[in-house]
Amino acid sequence: MVTESRGAPALNPYARDCPSRSLLDRIGDRWTVLIIGALGQDTRRFSELARLVDGVSQKMLTQTLRALERDGLVERTVHPVVPPRVEYRLTDEGRSLLSVTDLVERWAVAHYPAIAEAHERYDQRIG
Amino acid sequence: MVTESRGAPALNPYARDCPSRSLLDRIGDRWTVLIIGALGQDTRRFSELARLVDGVSQKMLTQTLRALERDGLVERTVHPVVPPRVEYRLTDEGRSLLSVTDLVERWAVAHYPAIAEAHERYDQRIG
Repeated sequence: MVTESRGAPALNPYARDCPSRSLLDRIGDRWTVLIIGALGQDTRRFSELARLVDGVSQKMLTQTLRALERDGLVERTVHPVVPPRVEYRLTDEGRSLLSVTDLVERWAVAHYPAIAEAHERYDQRIG
Repeated sequence: MVTESRGAPALNPYARDCPSRSLLDRIGDRWTVLIIGALGQDTRRFSELARLVDGVSQKMLTQTLRALERDGLVERTVHPVVPPRVEYRLTDEGRSLLSVTDLVERWAVAHYPAIAEAHERYDQRIG
């Protein structure tokens, strides 16, 4: 829980109407985490991202990239060649999210085994 | 993108069928982030959590706490008094998530203004 506030107006995602709350969902969404991670420091084509984030649908990849572009976190460049070459890369703002999504990813990988064990214990106890 | 792997079997959330992928959604869910943050180092009653996480529905709070209990991240204690007193606190495993959710929360608060500006620019350009 972040208690100090800097700047005005103070943002507090614990407050019902704080607009920062909606950002929480965005940051932690699985596709956002994986696409941000797959972009990393590189410039990637759509088809490369589709390959790196195994199993993501075209629709979901398109939607997530568009949302990230609207957020100013991803920059989309269309190269005027035939056929057009479309590339994506993180903006400076987007790169600032990389350390966050990286921590989310590392935590999930490191703690998955303990959580899978906890599920078995819980389900035996409840079931 | 986490490229090294430690231990076996290697978990890789970029792979379609890796079970760690589903954990990503969980960690970044807005209610998980806020409830983990509201618990922090303390023991809390259901009603306290409902007050701290302003606007969360009883149903969503119950569901999220139950999922976190199943994950082994939250411990639920029922004190045999009349009426029963039910308390929640983070397990050691749950406390390890606190640094992750705290970073998600801080990033959202710090970057919300830039993202809101980016939305305005994008919507003017596209609209």
